[in-house]
Amino acid sequence: MPPKSLAEELASKQKAISIGEFFERNRQILGFDNPSRALLTTVKEACDNSIDAAEEGRVLPEVLVEISKVTEERLKVVVEDNGPGILRKQIPNVFGRLLYGSRFYSNRQARGQQGIGISAAVLYAGLTTATPTHIVSKVEEDPAANVVDLLLDTQKNQARVVKEDVQAWDRPHGTRVELVLKARYQRGRQSPFEYLKGTAIVNPHARIVFVEPDGTRTTWERASPDLPPLAKEIPPHPHGLELGELDQMLRRSSAKNLQQFLTNDLSGIGRRAVSEVLEKGGFSGREVPASFTGERSEKLLAALKETPMATPSAECLSPIGPMLIKRGLKNVLGAVRPEFYSPPVSRPPKVHAGCPFVVEVGLVYGGELPSDQPIQLLRFANRVPLLFQQGACAITQTVAEMDWHRYGLEQKSGALPVGPVILLVHVASTKVPFTSEAKEAVAQTEDLTREIELAVQAAARNMKLHLSRRTRRDQAMEKFTIIQKILPKMAEKASGIVQKPVPDLTRVITRIMDVVAVEVKGTGEDPTKASPKTTIILTNYTARNRPIELFLELPLEATKEGFTSEPKPETVSPDLGRVTFPLLKLAPNAKATYTLTWPTGEELEPDDVDIYVAGVDEAHLLGADPLPGDWDVRLPAALVEAAEDAQIAAARPTPAEGEEEVDYDAAEGKESVSDEE
Amino acid sequence: MPPKSLAEELASKQKAISIGEFFERNRQILGFDNPSRALLTTVKEACDNSIDAAEEGRVLPEVLVEISKVTEERLKVVVEDNGPGILRKQIPNVFGRLLYGSRFYSNRQARGQQGIGISAAVLYAGLTTATPTHIVSKVEEDPAANVVDLLLDTQKNQARVVKEDVQAWDRPHGTRVELVLKARYQRGRQSPFEYLKGTAIVNPHARIVFVEPDGTRTTWERASPDLPPLAKEIPPHPHGLELGELDQMLRRSSAKNLQQFLTNDLSGIGRRAVSEVLEKGGFSGREVPASFTGERSEKLLAALKETPMATPSAECLSPIGPMLIKRGLKNVLGAVRPEFYSPPVSRPPKVHAGCPFVVEVGLVYGGELPSDQPIQLLRFANRVPLLFQQGACAITQTVAEMDWHRYGLEQKSGALPVGPVILLVHVASTKVPFTSEAKEAVAQTEDLTREIELAVQAAARNMKLHLSRRTRRDQAMEKFTIIQKILPKMAEKASGIVQKPVPDLTRVITRIMDVVAVEVKGTGEDPTKASPKTTIILTNYTARNRPIELFLELPLEATKEGFTSEPKPETVSPDLGRVTFPLLKLAPNAKATYTLTWPTGEELEPDDVDIYVAGVDEAHLLGADPLPGDWDVRLPAALVEAAEDAQIAAARPTPAEGEEEVDYDAAEGKESVSDEE
Repeated sequence: MPPKSLAEELASKQKAISIGEFFERNRQILGFDNPSRALLTTVKEACDNSIDAAEEGRVLPEVLVEISKVTEERLKVVVEDNGPGILRKQIPNVFGRLLYGSRFYSNRQARGQQGIGISAAVLYAGLTTATPTHIVSKVEEDPAANVVDLLLDTQKNQARVVKEDVQAWDRPHGTRVELVLKARYQRGRQSPFEYLKGTAIVNPHARIVFVEPDGTRTTWERASPDLPPLAKEIPPHPHGLELGELDQMLRRSSAKNLQQFLTNDLSGIGRRAVSEVLEKGGFSGREVPASFTGERSEKLLAALKETPMATPSAECLSPIGPMLIKRGLKNVLGAVRPEFYSPPVSRPPKVHAGCPFVVEVGLVYGGELPSDQPIQLLRFANRVPLLFQQGACAITQTVAEMDWHRYGLEQKSGALPVGPVILLVHVASTKVPFTSEAKEAVAQTEDLTREIELAVQAAARNMKLHLSRRTRRDQAMEKFTIIQKILPKMAEKASGIVQKPVPDLTRVITRIMDVVAVEVKGTGEDPTKASPKTTIILTNYTARNRPIELFLELPLEATKEGFTSEPKPETVSPDLGRVTFPLLKLAPNAKATYTLTWPTGEELEPDDVDIYVAGVDEAHLLGADPLPGDWDVRLPAALVEAAEDAQIAAARPTPAEGEEEVDYDAAEGKESVSDEE
Repeated sequence: MPPKSLAEELASKQKAISIGEFFERNRQILGFDNPSRALLTTVKEACDNSIDAAEEGRVLPEVLVEISKVTEERLKVVVEDNGPGILRKQIPNVFGRLLYGSRFYSNRQARGQQGIGISAAVLYAGLTTATPTHIVSKVEEDPAANVVDLLLDTQKNQARVVKEDVQAWDRPHGTRVELVLKARYQRGRQSPFEYLKGTAIVNPHARIVFVEPDGTRTTWERASPDLPPLAKEIPPHPHGLELGELDQMLRRSSAKNLQQFLTNDLSGIGRRAVSEVLEKGGFSGREVPASFTGERSEKLLAALKETPMATPSAECLSPIGPMLIKRGLKNVLGAVRPEFYSPPVSRPPKVHAGCPFVVEVGLVYGGELPSDQPIQLLRFANRVPLLFQQGACAITQTVAEMDWHRYGLEQKSGALPVGPVILLVHVASTKVPFTSEAKEAVAQTEDLTREIELAVQAAARNMKLHLSRRTRRDQAMEKFTIIQKILPKMAEKASGIVQKPVPDLTRVITRIMDVVAVEVKGTGEDPTKASPKTTIILTNYTARNRPIELFLELPLEATKEGFTSEPKPETVSPDLGRVTFPLLKLAPNAKATYTLTWPTGEELEPDDVDIYVAGVDEAHLLGADPLPGDWDVRLPAALVEAAEDAQIAAARPTPAEGEEEVDYDAAEGKESVSDEE
């Protein structure tokens, strides 16, 4: 035999790599870098599976997580659920084989998608302690539970069952898994405790019990009795498909012709769109999909992209929803008493690479949150908290790259802004683009980045609006205080000097104030009240009779059935969250009070209420805004006239009485004192 | 047939996931999130393979990278090398199959280890453009090159060869790969240009030619003619092995008994250590490895960990080395003219999970680097630049978590420090723990983090030493300037007033200075000089005869063969980089000049030279330090006496002459003027 050439020698070393051994050598990719992260990843994978299973079995999830100490370096993790259980024959595959699962090929939102997580935990436990994972699982139709002890053989990527048995179990169905692994327990930012707390925020329908190694038992009770609707499987959407992907779909399709392929294998294409695609591409519809070559599929793709189509169905997604986001945040943040909860933002679904996704954002401001620290960013993907790899995550990067100065927060370029803010961002998708199998960070794809930016911007705008309203209210309050304190004192002193009785100042104060003031009061102080009320008080601090109309814009859920008001509203549009009230005449110094009652269970902050007033121009209005153009309501003639008069008066520059004593005018940038009406 | 139960229905959906489809759906994990990153990843994977191949073929790498525009959205990437070529039968596996390669199972440092990279690029190209990858490869023994066009079939994870041919090629051996992919070309921080520039820094033995889409051609010429030694394969080291790993090794071993297993399957165990392990574990050495059960392997592992062993052999690693790190940095950073290159730090190899690794650090300070920006961090792993995922990388995190205030840099807690610094960190390992298959960030394992921290701290200490020396030198310079300018002027004026001739001030200046000053001058200005010289000048600005001895500590490579000095040194220790000179008597105002010549090709900055002087106490020494204790040299009696005298004199507080005119004394915190010796 001739001696091997160099190329031959190198070739003799080239061989296929077992996926099991690949992940064994690269366990950090799966989230098992170090003992404390390994613990978190194990808890997370088991717990995500448990909630997914219960939801698939249509029962409200009940999850028990128990961590106990075995030796100084080893912990035992037990996770038990009330899911439908796993058939005996599938237990070795589900727990002892990487890349095996039920959710990878189904195009819908799920926590687990890769078929890697729990097997990776079994692999890590075996590698570090050589202890088999103990699984107990019972399906409803079986009288007893199956018990299997197994290890993962990395060379073959399959389970090595070391023991099996059957045992009685008091649960009708469910699964319990026990792993012994090299791990370290700690509380803090990246701990199982934080993970479970976060899980409770975004899964208010789950009940979670957590037992720590020292015996501390924490229960997150169910905050919502409703199981979220099960996300439906849908085929890929044509917008966002790449040429090669379409090519493969065509080659693998079981559709007998192109017409059928377009109808069955893709989503979002109605009958009319099918005809349009066929016509644009010059196809008859009878072509055999598998016969498509490069050029023909290119033509088909172009036709698909040019044809307008329904946006992807959101049925494959299970977003949390604005109401539950807010409720979840309130649950957790009660203790810091934030002054402002932004109305949560839920973007309409978009599509990336054929997969629909949705971005939801919640924002909380003020209270006891520290104002000299970077904001707290809570990241979630498919209802799972993301605790590691914050720096690598598209969510963090997008938030850090926004210009937060325009929203009133300090920021070092490229860093998270500084301020008393908690920002929650949830990305839900049939396929979250994680940066690694450890599923701790979302990759930066353009579509996703744009949606996150838009959603966060909307929440930030709400925050800015709140801040500028607060400033205006504070200034108005200051003005009131100053005028009501100083004028009487001056009057008293002057009267004393000239030895005359102190005059009644009401009219004078009114003329100096020269505004219609609007105050909102919540019932935040008394949370025991069954139906929280909000009161709006209008006071006419001007010298004229004021014809006034009040308009409110409220969160949609607040104007649903159960909304009442005293006096009664003129119209309520639950679609828009808009409420109008009849015309009102308000004499100088008179007050009008509106008492609103929301549907039970809702809580509205004063900031949730957008208040608009017609009949008073902006310069003479405090605590509310003039009615914006998009309301498109017809105002009574009296109102229009009054507003015009007022504007003419305001436009005429006049020296301001009392400007020396109170210097709020410059700050407000408008004339607020006028004597000439 | 009875209706399926829920568990059965769920089970029917559970199935194995094809690795090809897994990565197809999760292409962001492989570094193909978006068109510009996809381009970089493609260039990187092809180029890493090229350099690896050339090194394995023991030729100096020659790599051509050419990017050209196909359509608005599509680019063509060509990468060609002079490696040994690939056998025809292996081409489909190497390029068209994920998890296939030659370096995964070999325990040595290599750029590519996973057998995923280039196949992932082929997969992405096919998915986005449906265009087959074109491969030309020639091995030396074949008369012509093989040409193969192929796609990656993700369902089967194997190549689909669509065309093949044979063609003449003027190269004796090499490989050329052409991919057409959806991509976007840009320059800037995360671009192919930056990647290739970084590659040139840490691979000075490679010649790289880059042609951009607009035709711009850049060539990084070879800066070193030496191929780095080929890293050798070694078995895993026992320290750092986990129980489960040892268990698996035992079960899979082909050794016929434990004695053989310990000797052949593990590295770092000498004959004596084998006996000690057997004795400690109570083994005879004749046990069959495959028969080991949990408890016995646990005992074996304990014995292995308790037995002292040789540190892992560094032969499996190929670090860059301090000299080439510095040369690489100088190559690239010439334009910013840094004032200081820290002596690069190369830590001794450590072991993590049985795999040796080494951390190297280079640091550059000042010049035209911006001082109000975060430092530039250049990350490398196995001689490959890491451009993405900076925030997720253990290197970044470790640097950011250090306290940089103590080294004189500003820093916001938890962020990279701010200052005119470029920091290069290179991690070389038989198995770099990347956070994902995209190999852009290193995971945080404890051992690695500690080594990075120690290496960066050492470089940072050098920087601080430089800064404090600079401060001291600046202060000394200021003192010289002031005294030499002001005193003569005062003398002139005074002489004018009293109408007497201006006196000679040399002695007065000397008495005021009262120091021995040491200056170092490099030959930085004249790079054409074949043998750069460094000059050290000692001047006795004191009123006494000074017996003085000069000692130098230099970078090790500077004292190798080729080092000369005028006057001749007394001793040179190349092991320690230490040079001593004979005793010298220096009269007041006398100078002594030492001219040093380094081995050709070396360039030394003044800062590379640590200068120590014996015979003068610290208070009377400028520009050098007293000899530290660890030199352990025997000083002549005259010197010891002189130093003692000086210390006694310095300890006596005396009013300082001329203190009113020059206020440098307070700044230096010591008495520098004394009249009483």
